[in-house]
Amino acid sequence: MRRKLCSLTLGLLTVLLVQTAISSQTPKQNTITDAVKAVLFAQRDAWNRGDIPGYMDGYERSPKTVFVSGDNVTHGWQTVLEHYQKSYNSREKMGTLSFTDLEINPIGNDRAVVIGSWRLKRANDEPHGKFTLIFRKTKAGWRIVHDHTSSA
Amino acid sequence: MRRKLCSLTLGLLTVLLVQTAISSQTPKQNTITDAVKAVLFAQRDAWNRGDIPGYMDGYERSPKTVFVSGDNVTHGWQTVLEHYQKSYNSREKMGTLSFTDLEINPIGNDRAVVIGSWRLKRANDEPHGKFTLIFRKTKAGWRIVHDHTSSA
Repeated sequence: MRRKLCSLTLGLLTVLLVQTAISSQTPKQNTITDAVKAVLFAQRDAWNRGDIPGYMDGYERSPKTVFVSGDNVTHGWQTVLEHYQKSYNSREKMGTLSFTDLEINPIGNDRAVVIGSWRLKRANDEPHGKFTLIFRKTKAGWRIVHDHTSSA
Repeated sequence: MRRKLCSLTLGLLTVLLVQTAISSQTPKQNTITDAVKAVLFAQRDAWNRGDIPGYMDGYERSPKTVFVSGDNVTHGWQTVLEHYQKSYNSREKMGTLSFTDLEINPIGNDRAVVIGSWRLKRANDEPHGKFTLIFRKTKAGWRIVHDHTSSA
């Protein structure tokens, strides 16, 4: 019995050590990574139920929040909310959004840079591409302050 | 004469005050902004004399340096140098590069986020678009560690 317990403990210890070795992030960085992922998945889920204000909640509600895409730069949370509400005025246009290939790099304690792939599955097309996001730890939680999105 | 001097002094003082009011940046931020601009203009000048290694000197020489464009993510300074050397193997293909509309936002003392417009004037076309750059203060000076470029 003691032997079994001992090998169980050794096994658990090995799993823990291997997990620590696999993740090169500190516990603090893991917390940031988890917080940032939670915001992104909440955005995706909001989009996929047709909730644009819910999606926009992932961005900092500031006139300084920046959106870059193609040859355009737009400043301001409110401006972008209105743009989305006009451009995606039906569930068909919104389609189903997914985020994959996330690379989350914390910078200090209050910023993180995220690279990822986005894809919009719709009845007639499937636009996709990459994004770079800069997150900032705000009073409301981790929020995107800078979004650069490009497409294939 | 004293009156003239006095109004000259007042005039200068007004100019200084207005300049301070216009620039919302601290002296430290101004130093960062100047350093970042110097790197960008050196990159532009290197490109325009057909010097790709000189252009690449603006990026951190690290396997972690990230380049995002369209639907592609590329990691590593060396990989991108080789890509540029293959894709832009003549002065005609390189054209004349310009950077405009620069918005430089320092983050703390060792990072800066830059938004700008790029344009390549060539004999037969004029590709253009936007970029988001993340600069880091390295031992070699301010260098780009993350480049997301999109085109019109």
